[in-house]
Amino acid sequence: MSSDRLLDDFNAGKSAALARVVSIVENHRDGFEAILGGLHSQTGRARRIGLTGPPGAGKSTITALLVKNFRDAGLKVGVIAVDPTSPFTGGALLGDRVRMENVALDPGVFIRSMATRGSLGGLAAATREVADVLDAFGFDRLLIETVGVGQSELDVARTADSTALILVPESGDSIQTLKAGVMEVADIFVVNKADRPGADRLRNDVELMLGLRKGVSFGSVPAHHGVDLKRMNPARLAREAAAAENPATWTPPVLSAVATKQEGISEMVAALDRHFAYLEQTGTLHARRRERMRERVTDVVERKVRDRLWKDSHTIAWLDEQLPSLEEGRSTPFAVADQLLRQSGELVRGEERQ
Amino acid sequence: MSSDRLLDDFNAGKSAALARVVSIVENHRDGFEAILGGLHSQTGRARRIGLTGPPGAGKSTITALLVKNFRDAGLKVGVIAVDPTSPFTGGALLGDRVRMENVALDPGVFIRSMATRGSLGGLAAATREVADVLDAFGFDRLLIETVGVGQSELDVARTADSTALILVPESGDSIQTLKAGVMEVADIFVVNKADRPGADRLRNDVELMLGLRKGVSFGSVPAHHGVDLKRMNPARLAREAAAAENPATWTPPVLSAVATKQEGISEMVAALDRHFAYLEQTGTLHARRRERMRERVTDVVERKVRDRLWKDSHTIAWLDEQLPSLEEGRSTPFAVADQLLRQSGELVRGEERQ
Repeated sequence: MSSDRLLDDFNAGKSAALARVVSIVENHRDGFEAILGGLHSQTGRARRIGLTGPPGAGKSTITALLVKNFRDAGLKVGVIAVDPTSPFTGGALLGDRVRMENVALDPGVFIRSMATRGSLGGLAAATREVADVLDAFGFDRLLIETVGVGQSELDVARTADSTALILVPESGDSIQTLKAGVMEVADIFVVNKADRPGADRLRNDVELMLGLRKGVSFGSVPAHHGVDLKRMNPARLAREAAAAENPATWTPPVLSAVATKQEGISEMVAALDRHFAYLEQTGTLHARRRERMRERVTDVVERKVRDRLWKDSHTIAWLDEQLPSLEEGRSTPFAVADQLLRQSGELVRGEERQ
Repeated sequence: MSSDRLLDDFNAGKSAALARVVSIVENHRDGFEAILGGLHSQTGRARRIGLTGPPGAGKSTITALLVKNFRDAGLKVGVIAVDPTSPFTGGALLGDRVRMENVALDPGVFIRSMATRGSLGGLAAATREVADVLDAFGFDRLLIETVGVGQSELDVARTADSTALILVPESGDSIQTLKAGVMEVADIFVVNKADRPGADRLRNDVELMLGLRKGVSFGSVPAHHGVDLKRMNPARLAREAAAAENPATWTPPVLSAVATKQEGISEMVAALDRHFAYLEQTGTLHARRRERMRERVTDVVERKVRDRLWKDSHTIAWLDEQLPSLEEGRSTPFAVADQLLRQSGELVRGEERQ
C-alpha cells in the first residue's frame, strides 16, 4: 500500500490503517517521519492522561474502568501501555486479559502496548510519537500507563497533560522511594484498594508529603502518625483554603478507590476534568504543550544525529580502528570523540559524503 | 585546589581526593573530561559486578555481605548504588543504615549513590564514568547495585562484567515481567529468602525459563509445575552436561541464599569467580570491555553534541522562534529539526560561531 493511500485510509478513520501507522511509527520503519509530519497539523486535540505507580497498584484495572467511563460518555479512547507489568503488554493474569477483551472489541477504543526496550531514541520520545498518531486519528482521551519506577518511565509520565499516581496500602514503605521523582510528577493521587488496612495511613503520608513539598515543616512529627494529625495538618488546611480562593493554584487531590469494586472512578474522572480546566484557565496547558513541542524537536534532532553518525559505515570503521589505542591507554574516549566530531560536520548536517 | 594537585592526591590514594573526583565526574563539573581523560590509562583492572532485581529482593543486604566477603579476602571494594530503593541512596530502614555504617567506616570501601534522574546523558553513561574513577583509584571489585525494572536501570546492569539477578519468592509472578530484558542480562541467578515458601517453585521457574531461553520447548508443560519436573527437565540436564564438557559455554547458575542469615554468599562469590574465569578464558571479557570502550566514546560524542546544540543561545533562541508555527501546524518537528541540523555543522564540530 502506498504511503498516500495509507494516510487516506487513516484520515477516513479506518482502524486497520491506524494499526499500520502506529506500527510504522513505533518501529521507525521507512517513511515514518513523512507520516508523522503529515499528521502533525491534526494533533493537539486529545487530552493525554498518564497513569503511573508501582507494580501491583491496579493501574490496568483503573485504566480499563476509565476507558469504560469515557466510552459511556461517548468519547473515543486510545491506550498506550508502556508498563511491562501491564496486562496490555502481556504480563497478565488471565482474569485481566478476559476483562480487557470486552474493551478491545470496541471500535472506539485502541490499545497499544509499547516495548520497554530497543527504542534507542528513548521510550518517552517513542511514546510522544505514538500518542501524536492516536491524537491525529481523533481519539478524545489518551491513557498512557507506565510503571513508576525507572527514569525512562518517569519521562514517559511527563509526556502527559495530567498524570495520576496510583498507590496501594501495600506500597506504603515504597512511598519513600517514589518521592524522588514520581511525587513531583503527579497531578492527582489515587489510593487504590482503599478498603484494605493501611489505606488511611498511606493517604496521611501522601498528604503530609504534599504539605512538605510546599515547604511547610512539621518539625519532629514522626513519619507514621495517627489519624488525628490529618485533621490538624496545617499544610493541608492552608492548601485547601488557598485552592478555594485561588483557582490558579492546583492542589493535587488524594483520592480513594477500590477499583475491583468499581468505586472511586467517577471521582477520578471528575478530578481529571477539574485538572484539565485548571490547565486551560491558567495557560499551563499551553505552556506544557509548547514544552512538549520543543521536546519533540530535540528528540528528532538527537535521533537524526545518532542515525547519521552511527549508521555511517566510514564512521563506524574509523571508530573500530581507534579501539586498540583506547584499550592500551594511548588515547582517551574524549580525544577520540573530539576527533570524530571534528570530521563529522557534514554528516551531521545531512550532507552526502564527498 | 588545582586540578593537577587533585590528581596527585588521587593517585596517592587519598580518600578525600577520590570523593572530590567522583563528585566532579558525576555532576559533570568543569574539568571533568580532563580528569577522566587523565585517569583513562589506569582503568581496566577492577572487576565490575552488577547486582539487580526487584525492590525488596535484598540486593543491599547481599551487597553489604559481598563487601564483607571481599574485604575479608583483602580486596578493596567500591559500591555504586543506582537504586532509589537502596539504603545507600537513602530509601533505607534504620536497621540497614546501621548495618552499612560498619562498612562505610572501612577505608578499603567506598560507597557512592547515584541520583536516578537528572543525568541527561543517561544513567548508564554516568555509571560507566564513576566506575572508571573507582577502577583507576585501585578498587579490586566494583559492585553496581540497580533496581531491575526500568530501561535505564537495565542499561546500567549492562555496564558490568558479571551481573547477578536477585529474586525472592514474593517476586514469583513478577518473573514474567522481568524476563523481557533482565533475564537475558543475568549471568548468575540468586533466589534470596530461600527459606520461604515458594522458593523451590521460583527456582524451578527460572531454570525452566533458562531452558526455554536455549530454544528447548516443553510443549504443554504448565508454567507452575511440581518439583519432579525439575529433576527430569531435559534442557537442564543437557545444559549441565554441555557445561561439564565444554568450558566455553556459560550456564547461568541458579543459587539459593538467605542473606539475613548470611547464607549463600560464599557460593555467590565462587560463582562470580567462575564466571570471571569463563570471561577471561573465552575472550568474552575482552569483547565485553571493548564494547564498553566503544560505548564510552559514543556516550561522549552524543553528550558533546547535546551540549554544543542545546547550550548554544543562538540555537535555543532560533528554536523558540519556530514554536508558534509548529503549534499552528504550519511546520513539523521534522522540518524544524532538519533545518536546525543544516545550520549546526560548525557547532557540532566544536568550532566557534562566526
